[in-house]
Amino acid sequence: MKTIRVATFDGAGTRPHIRSVPRPKVPEWAALIRIGACGVCGTDLHILRGHWPKPLPWPLTLGHELVGVIEEKGAALKADFMGQSLAEGDNVMLPPLMSCGECYYCVHYPTHANRCLNPTYYGRYIPFVKPPHLWGGWAEMVYVDLEMFPATKIYRLPNDMMPLRGSLSEPLTCCIRALNRAVSADGFHVGDNVVIQGSGPIGVLTLVAALEMGAGRVVVVGAPEEPRLAICRAFGAAGTVSIEEYATPQSRIDAVRDVVGGFGADLVIDCTGHPSAGPEGIEMLRDGGTYVEMGQFTDAGLIETNWHRICVKDISLLGSWAFTPNDIPLGIQMLHRVGDRYPWHLMQKCFPFSEEGVSAATEAAMRMRCVKATIVPEENLARST
Amino acid sequence: MKTIRVATFDGAGTRPHIRSVPRPKVPEWAALIRIGACGVCGTDLHILRGHWPKPLPWPLTLGHELVGVIEEKGAALKADFMGQSLAEGDNVMLPPLMSCGECYYCVHYPTHANRCLNPTYYGRYIPFVKPPHLWGGWAEMVYVDLEMFPATKIYRLPNDMMPLRGSLSEPLTCCIRALNRAVSADGFHVGDNVVIQGSGPIGVLTLVAALEMGAGRVVVVGAPEEPRLAICRAFGAAGTVSIEEYATPQSRIDAVRDVVGGFGADLVIDCTGHPSAGPEGIEMLRDGGTYVEMGQFTDAGLIETNWHRICVKDISLLGSWAFTPNDIPLGIQMLHRVGDRYPWHLMQKCFPFSEEGVSAATEAAMRMRCVKATIVPEENLARST
Amino acid sequence: MKTIRVATFDGAGTRPHIRSVPRPKVPEWAALIRIGACGVCGTDLHILRGHWPKPLPWPLTLGHELVGVIEEKGAALKADFMGQSLAEGDNVMLPPLMSCGECYYCVHYPTHANRCLNPTYYGRYIPFVKPPHLWGGWAEMVYVDLEMFPATKIYRLPNDMMPLRGSLSEPLTCCIRALNRAVSADGFHVGDNVVIQGSGPIGVLTLVAALEMGAGRVVVVGAPEEPRLAICRAFGAAGTVSIEEYATPQSRIDAVRDVVGGFGADLVIDCTGHPSAGPEGIEMLRDGGTYVEMGQFTDAGLIETNWHRICVKDISLLGSWAFTPNDIPLGIQMLHRVGDRYPWHLMQKCFPFSEEGVSAATEAAMRMRCVKATIVPEENLARST
Amino acid sequence: MKTIRVATFDGAGTRPHIRSVPRPKVPEWAALIRIGACGVCGTDLHILRGHWPKPLPWPLTLGHELVGVIEEKGAALKADFMGQSLAEGDNVMLPPLMSCGECYYCVHYPTHANRCLNPTYYGRYIPFVKPPHLWGGWAEMVYVDLEMFPATKIYRLPNDMMPLRGSLSEPLTCCIRALNRAVSADGFHVGDNVVIQGSGPIGVLTLVAALEMGAGRVVVVGAPEEPRLAICRAFGAAGTVSIEEYATPQSRIDAVRDVVGGFGADLVIDCTGHPSAGPEGIEMLRDGGTYVEMGQFTDAGLIETNWHRICVKDISLLGSWAFTPNDIPLGIQMLHRVGDRYPWHLMQKCFPFSEEGVSAATEAAMRMRCVKATIVPEENLARST
Repeated sequence: MKTIRVATFDGAGTRPHIRSVPRPKVPEWAALIRIGACGVCGTDLHILRGHWPKPLPWPLTLGHELVGVIEEKGAALKADFMGQSLAEGDNVMLPPLMSCGECYYCVHYPTHANRCLNPTYYGRYIPFVKPPHLWGGWAEMVYVDLEMFPATKIYRLPNDMMPLRGSLSEPLTCCIRALNRAVSADGFHVGDNVVIQGSGPIGVLTLVAALEMGAGRVVVVGAPEEPRLAICRAFGAAGTVSIEEYATPQSRIDAVRDVVGGFGADLVIDCTGHPSAGPEGIEMLRDGGTYVEMGQFTDAGLIETNWHRICVKDISLLGSWAFTPNDIPLGIQMLHRVGDRYPWHLMQKCFPFSEEGVSAATEAAMRMRCVKATIVPEENLARST
Repeated sequence: MKTIRVATFDGAGTRPHIRSVPRPKVPEWAALIRIGACGVCGTDLHILRGHWPKPLPWPLTLGHELVGVIEEKGAALKADFMGQSLAEGDNVMLPPLMSCGECYYCVHYPTHANRCLNPTYYGRYIPFVKPPHLWGGWAEMVYVDLEMFPATKIYRLPNDMMPLRGSLSEPLTCCIRALNRAVSADGFHVGDNVVIQGSGPIGVLTLVAALEMGAGRVVVVGAPEEPRLAICRAFGAAGTVSIEEYATPQSRIDAVRDVVGGFGADLVIDCTGHPSAGPEGIEMLRDGGTYVEMGQFTDAGLIETNWHRICVKDISLLGSWAFTPNDIPLGIQMLHRVGDRYPWHLMQKCFPFSEEGVSAATEAAMRMRCVKATIVPEENLARST
Repeated sequence: MKTIRVATFDGAGTRPHIRSVPRPKVPEWAALIRIGACGVCGTDLHILRGHWPKPLPWPLTLGHELVGVIEEKGAALKADFMGQSLAEGDNVMLPPLMSCGECYYCVHYPTHANRCLNPTYYGRYIPFVKPPHLWGGWAEMVYVDLEMFPATKIYRLPNDMMPLRGSLSEPLTCCIRALNRAVSADGFHVGDNVVIQGSGPIGVLTLVAALEMGAGRVVVVGAPEEPRLAICRAFGAAGTVSIEEYATPQSRIDAVRDVVGGFGADLVIDCTGHPSAGPEGIEMLRDGGTYVEMGQFTDAGLIETNWHRICVKDISLLGSWAFTPNDIPLGIQMLHRVGDRYPWHLMQKCFPFSEEGVSAATEAAMRMRCVKATIVPEENLARST
Repeated sequence: MKTIRVATFDGAGTRPHIRSVPRPKVPEWAALIRIGACGVCGTDLHILRGHWPKPLPWPLTLGHELVGVIEEKGAALKADFMGQSLAEGDNVMLPPLMSCGECYYCVHYPTHANRCLNPTYYGRYIPFVKPPHLWGGWAEMVYVDLEMFPATKIYRLPNDMMPLRGSLSEPLTCCIRALNRAVSADGFHVGDNVVIQGSGPIGVLTLVAALEMGAGRVVVVGAPEEPRLAICRAFGAAGTVSIEEYATPQSRIDAVRDVVGGFGADLVIDCTGHPSAGPEGIEMLRDGGTYVEMGQFTDAGLIETNWHRICVKDISLLGSWAFTPNDIPLGIQMLHRVGDRYPWHLMQKCFPFSEEGVSAATEAAMRMRCVKATIVPEENLARST
């Protein structure tokens, strides 16, 4: 491969344009990674819709749920962030949020290093024009260079984890971290009944994480019935509540309480991104329960809220945003541990790496025709172990 | 004393009416307690203003921050809730919220026994007409009877704690419990910078509790400068921010950040009861900080809220409502431990037990002319140890 | 059934003697429960060997891992400890340790109600001579009476849980509670590598509990290879270390570290009952790890210990003894949730209810010929749902 | 000052020898710090007695409880570890244990960065022969250089904290960290009764830390009555138990239980360094209580221990060793906050910086003639603010 193809967007609302760039030389601390699979994240959709609140360096390459195989690497790059050895041919993932490790938050609040003051993001903030032009996951290759971007973090995957599966490790990490926030606040315990608001990728992966961390009954509130709620039940939800069928907040609250029983849920998690989730969700809780807000990742606006309910119900409400560098292994290892216990094939829909494929993937994700759209340059590589 | 005088209200908005009732016989499990001091609580004011959301058994006797001396007791009533012996002449307090100890919440969620399904309240829900008519603290005596109200809880005070001081133990307990909610959720640590919204009795007592539990710098946001903010500084606040001087949320947020420095406060606590406290207060936090909502004790309405801020700031937001039976000793003991380290006399304003005195006390509390209005039937008794 | 047969022991070291007693009348608050299955616990073996440190009311009936079906019940006994309805025909379990709910520990330290000052124990401390003579699980029926023993706790099982499976709920509860002690002390997190010392019933059930609560790799150290270590691997252990093969502490520590990798285990749990477990086990930990001591349930003597190692390794060491009344539902529900995910048949060996059967069961348990010996009066009932 | 005098030891058991070295040039990332005060730590005594378990680079300069004023600094050294500006004339402290920030423990277990795999220690492991020969606190100056030792950490003290007081910040930090270990493990709560074993510097500072973090009654077990136990009472101990008066473990356990009352202490902390502390101390606990082992800092040998007691008492036992870089501000700030609330002058005994002074200081510390021996080159500087 003398040249490498990479998808670029010229701005919000534009269609993908695949460009070819020359294969770069790989210096001491760098690596060239052949993409195996890269998911479409809600963040990508926000950017393409023009809802991103910060300036972006167009044209750019999207894609940050990213797994590939090391095609070539420099001699100095010997170990991943966890101290595991790295070699050509190894499967690796790059997380989208790379904390600097040196700012006030990274050093003094390490469990909140997600709030790093100076993070590095591949797949978003590095402009395409910067050589060697390979800065995102919707491409044949991605290039990393620890001298250029010292915060770059690489995580080696287990040998027997295929890239397609591995590309779920980053969103799964977000879900585990959200549940761990509840654990740390004494708000999630083995056997707890859990309600998940939202049946998209984050909802389904939170369902997996909750079950693997010892939840009792888990109920998912979302839509549409096909494919999403059906998939949630196939993944182990004890019940689902369709927002199409139950059109009012009170009817949904009642429906959830019918399934979880008792005085309400022990834990409710917002995985929707819709502002109404919070005020509705806390009414699904028993008094003394816990609510985790991980869905309002971007600013979707204000909602009238009664803070008296938070006081009188004696509840905990915990925000969780993204993850820290030490959370990523939790996602990788859980994915590895559960193996084929879950029907992953129902969840991931693959799209080829072409202008049409990338368009179709983002379209399918926006229209909720699948749970997780994933771009796969080479089908064989995506499924290799 | 053949008859006992007791203040009653015939409804919201009425003036106090002192009635005399015969001194009752005291059966095996009962006691007659001579009131030493009884505070005026915000809840009393809500009731008198007609803002109480539930039906009340008018006429009734208010007053539930209540300390007295055991005048007479039955032979079976030998020990208080903590297993300490009880004798005539002992100083004791009764808490306003007495959990039943038998409902689902009391048995299965003991740290949330404040949410008891079947609580007993003196000073509010027992009608005056029920003999022997002594069911509240704005009176010369209160009557307790564990056969009639088995949930009744009595706490003996240390010998050297005068009733006037002891009457602060119940509100102080609420504040300690609110801070303990933060401790349990990994949200309050020694050295943390704390902001208290509100300079009323709960604000001042939260200031004391925070300092005693190891807070770093504590800032109080409130009004008026005289007497309240000046008293806060006398009690040890590192700074105060006047809402009269700083008229906008952003100016208050900036003023607080000037005092606490760094990236914002580690912990902010609402002690105001005003719905705007929450959305304003979370912006005073550093990312990853903790907010405790103990101020919205009753329903003061809705406020537009951006839940994205809770997510992206990675914060914890904890409701705390009242206290459980095991929290009360924490308030009594802290009050005892600190002794005269704080200028309590600045905080408590005494009013005589008369129709005029009771009126003046509630009026002073409503108009924020003092911090804690307290009704004192006998000055000597209030200050005896 | 006019008479009911019940196994009794006349003292330590004696053989079981089955006596027949008349079927009792069942008053308002009582019930007669037909035994479906009852396990042999290490405590039973300690008693039979004469190692029990307290006086026992011989003759007595052993057996406290007890599940049965309600044969007959009084009208007042309407609900179980969790508030679930009770009816004739329901499967129920009785826990061996029934806290009183009223002593200082039960009221003021509810998470340590296992240390109840005045507990009730069926299957041990109620003498056979007390009518109606049905006080233990190695019998055709057990009798409960909440007027006679007000601390008696009954837990209804899910409809589809057969008694044989349900009889594991009490020992599983002990294991969950031990792990929850680590969770509460910030010492067990999703993905943690865990070492279990001991491959008996408590070892195997701790393995299940650890996996269900999100453990990473779990290693079991024990013996013999057949049947016990093989069963551990069938239940999901990532590795086993045979104490027959690895004869010295250092060799076992090295073998464990080979499997868990890195700097040692995050969590080590003693399920052996042998005093040497502690000093050996803490050396299997990484610095900053957690050790749970649930194995030294009875006093097996002193061992030389270097407390400097606890200090310099910066570790947590947590005792966990039995369970509280609120823990039992965790065991029942986990057992129900996992269904047939584990090869339970490998673990439970059934023995008939006869003098020979009871003898054989205790003998098999003592000689470690099986994992959990279980006495089953009626094979059909034991497997009915 | 053209030359600088520095105390050196040629080996364990030798007397101090003061040498003069030329004043060094100070490069970009370096500083020369004029010593204001430097405490004598138990570690220094272990080294001088020849009890140190690792090889040491004799001759060397001891002294690591170290505060001074910046005499001269390079232009690049602009901020301390907390991001505070640094200028000539500022008071600063150096901690003895400087974690590297880059090893597996520092990056992946930041709350256990005290277990850093590659730490830097001034005052112990840097040989005197290495230029510019100023590597410890028993000297007129200490030299730091972040290019030579990148892990070097400097903490600026508040302007109004005199060096003599500031030299307590490092040992106080150890004590706060030990108590924080208990907080994190749900084992120390406001109002808890605490027993401190040991009345040396660590015992007294743990007393201060416990009181400032909300302890109820604190009892110190130690000796001798004069000066140590009397000082403990002056610092606020509710009671003291003399090991000279109470000669047996059981008599001490009884004496402690008399003071704390109830079922025993909620928290016991070893600050002795004697192996017998642990087995004795856990018997001072109520069931469910917490024991912190911070005293066995070095290896003082084995002790027979009954691990059954840990299990059946349902207790937590937590090791705490030294501190992490983020703990140091907690010690500095607490010391600043409490100001003159404690009679510090009783605790610190000053010795001049001379061969006789250093000898006398180590001698006084070994013979327990004072609580904290402190070497003070210039009396004025030690007390300047």
